[in-house]
Amino acid sequence: MSQKPNLPQGTRDFGPIVVQRRKYILHTIEAVFKKYGFMPIETPAMEQLTTLSGKYGDEGDQLLYKILNTGDYFKKLSSYQAEAIERGELDKSTLPSFDNSIENLDAKKSLAFISEKGLRYDLTVPFARYVTMNRNSITLPFKRYQMQPVWRADKPQKGRYREFWQCDADIIGSDSLLNEAELIKIYDEVFTKLQLPVIIKINNRKLLSALASHIDASQHFSAITIAIDKIDKIGITGVTNILDQAGLNREQIDCIIKFLNFSNEPNPIDLVEAMLGYLQEGALGIAELKKVQSFLNILHPTNRIQFDFTLARGLSYYTGAIVEVQAQAGTFKASIGGGGRYDNLTGIFGMSGLSGVGISFGLDRIYDVLEEHQLFPKELKINDTKILFCYFDEATQLKAIDLCAQLRNHGIAAEVYPEITKKIGKQFEYANKLEIPYACIIGETELESNMLQVKNLQSGVQNPMDIHSMINLLNE
Amino acid sequence: MSQKPNLPQGTRDFGPIVVQRRKYILHTIEAVFKKYGFMPIETPAMEQLTTLSGKYGDEGDQLLYKILNTGDYFKKLSSYQAEAIERGELDKSTLPSFDNSIENLDAKKSLAFISEKGLRYDLTVPFARYVTMNRNSITLPFKRYQMQPVWRADKPQKGRYREFWQCDADIIGSDSLLNEAELIKIYDEVFTKLQLPVIIKINNRKLLSALASHIDASQHFSAITIAIDKIDKIGITGVTNILDQAGLNREQIDCIIKFLNFSNEPNPIDLVEAMLGYLQEGALGIAELKKVQSFLNILHPTNRIQFDFTLARGLSYYTGAIVEVQAQAGTFKASIGGGGRYDNLTGIFGMSGLSGVGISFGLDRIYDVLEEHQLFPKELKINDTKILFCYFDEATQLKAIDLCAQLRNHGIAAEVYPEITKKIGKQFEYANKLEIPYACIIGETELESNMLQVKNLQSGVQNPMDIHSMINLLNE
Repeated sequence: MSQKPNLPQGTRDFGPIVVQRRKYILHTIEAVFKKYGFMPIETPAMEQLTTLSGKYGDEGDQLLYKILNTGDYFKKLSSYQAEAIERGELDKSTLPSFDNSIENLDAKKSLAFISEKGLRYDLTVPFARYVTMNRNSITLPFKRYQMQPVWRADKPQKGRYREFWQCDADIIGSDSLLNEAELIKIYDEVFTKLQLPVIIKINNRKLLSALASHIDASQHFSAITIAIDKIDKIGITGVTNILDQAGLNREQIDCIIKFLNFSNEPNPIDLVEAMLGYLQEGALGIAELKKVQSFLNILHPTNRIQFDFTLARGLSYYTGAIVEVQAQAGTFKASIGGGGRYDNLTGIFGMSGLSGVGISFGLDRIYDVLEEHQLFPKELKINDTKILFCYFDEATQLKAIDLCAQLRNHGIAAEVYPEITKKIGKQFEYANKLEIPYACIIGETELESNMLQVKNLQSGVQNPMDIHSMINLLNE
Repeated sequence: MSQKPNLPQGTRDFGPIVVQRRKYILHTIEAVFKKYGFMPIETPAMEQLTTLSGKYGDEGDQLLYKILNTGDYFKKLSSYQAEAIERGELDKSTLPSFDNSIENLDAKKSLAFISEKGLRYDLTVPFARYVTMNRNSITLPFKRYQMQPVWRADKPQKGRYREFWQCDADIIGSDSLLNEAELIKIYDEVFTKLQLPVIIKINNRKLLSALASHIDASQHFSAITIAIDKIDKIGITGVTNILDQAGLNREQIDCIIKFLNFSNEPNPIDLVEAMLGYLQEGALGIAELKKVQSFLNILHPTNRIQFDFTLARGLSYYTGAIVEVQAQAGTFKASIGGGGRYDNLTGIFGMSGLSGVGISFGLDRIYDVLEEHQLFPKELKINDTKILFCYFDEATQLKAIDLCAQLRNHGIAAEVYPEITKKIGKQFEYANKLEIPYACIIGETELESNMLQVKNLQSGVQNPMDIHSMINLLNE
């Protein structure tokens, strides 16, 4: 019985040209990571739910893909239910109808009985787990990169997929702000190589924390960062509304808006310093930003790095510098990369006192922007094949196979048309569709002679040459 | 609250040197795939369960990792239960006790309500799905390669992991046996490049089918292939027992054993031909093997390819040539690669009449064999860094950053020790642990002079040179 196949929503197949272009992006990023001394690690797609849960906020927990335990999970559920009744948590008498009974089984509580593993949600938490588990074999400071897919059960939309790749570089075990500067320079170098115009925004969480203290609203710090993080989407009015709902008064909100507007002034750092410099965290945040700037002055990045005091970042674990990259080409304005410093991420796994800082590239969004602006190199091809050997019958096929094998022995990608067919047009069509630049037709004459007809399929020009000349031509 | 993290059973982290070695294997395989004209595709980790189920036999279905639906799956289950009662499939009155009710919910039947997606089990079924879904944009014959992880909930043991990588090359839309020969040559070339001694075994399913006809046991064909497939593990006695239990008589079993012993004789093909050549399938199987051999004679593989009539392969979809690779080094005798021809794999998705043939490399097992025999190239390193800049204070740090940036601008991987420390020993220890070959120490003197002290950390020899000489030295 046949079935019409389809793909899970939010996931995609990648055909040859897409894979080549994705590899081009990956290799560009990886080459820069390596030049800066980062070393690769890889972690499994599946992690224990205990590792993943509670690390990405309530929303993140909802978006985790959970894997069904093998074996008879219903048996386990059933005994859980019996125990719950015994403990008095479930009242059997209040569950008279059979079909209601399962609804009373709270999905969250019973999850542990049917699922213990989930799919990787990002690369940072697995990295923190890796560092903790391998603490005895790792040399600190540890500079690692990791380029792997992650999965989130988010609502698919433009630029948001359920399977997507992150490319992360992190340094753990070093407080030095040189790391921040080098990571920003890495962003700058990668997007320069990709010829993609971007803005690299920098801020420091300590300033946001000082701002909250300044207006006597430290208890609302999380709400303030979440509101500011949405400013690009909802504007000042939207931010005002959220802060109002969070319980901040007019005066507090006005002060936050004043702070957010500093970025539009000529000397924003001075203005922030004048407002928050009297607070220890404010002074530290300013000092850190200036220190990063002084390192960047030596590294000579392009002029697209800017301080942006409206940058907040969503994740809760950032404690110092935060950074975000926005494409300046086209309609898609969402971030294509981001990162920051986290002072105690390994602490959740029992290894405290280790500060780290990292950045992430969003492969799929970078791909979308490069594609929209046709910024992929023209020379990227769906295959490496330089020449197709065409022929007509069993005898000429054997000759073609022999010649093709000789080219391959010289490291040249070459193909023999696999099927015997008298139709030379069909063979040429194959070569054209696969963008193979040359064809060599083996007929009766070529069986006797050492001279071969090599046709340039773009120009149509055909030249006779021996196998050595052919090797030279195709090795160019 | 901290927690001691761990990994799901059967999964592994890969540290820097392991990733580099895995990449070495992947790049070796990929380079050969490309030289033979194969093009890359990638498919998502998650597939619909309707795509995966029923494709790998009952055992395979058990080993599929299933992903829990998001949302309130218990609600769905509960309405399923109500409907089942309505249809009379479940009798409410026979389910008096609450804690028993769930046991009556058959895990298999209710699975659809809590899981609709699963993790990729191999690369062949997703490829067949891909070809079917993209039939209008694909040029046939289509030569694709795919190198991605797959997941199986199998019992972990030596050489068997729950997440492991396959590297597949398939040609679909061509009947030509040249494809079989080229794929065998690819195995030969890859393992030659990896310097790994192997035996590449070849057989043809048509001969096994003819054998079943010959002994009048075609209805037992599946049982016969499954039994023969286990011969390496259970020997002739074990095979005899299975066949006996399957209902074959002594005469039939003797004939199968006679056939299996042909491989030990001087001219096995002749013996098989004498036994089975009178049957159409037998004659075809022999002709196909001979044709593949004739192509291989032109391709000049090494002499480790052998016909093995005891080769059966586990998967049911093979219909012609079958091939399997066994490492000839060390203790681990399980297959490190295998493949074969399948005449109608896309048929299950509604696209019939398309013959294909493919091979697969098992990355993780190849890794294990190469590691056991120390066959990884010595030059593989955990990072690319050529030189570490060491320093003592803020002033020398800035000089070090500047020099390092100059080297990186020349494409040289270099690092500045990230933390300011007076302890030069600590900085050298970092370089040594990371196997960085050179160090450059920036002291007071170097702030004034253009001459730099470059120390070879292996020999201990230190030479003064300017930045240009340093660039020349490290670019070598």
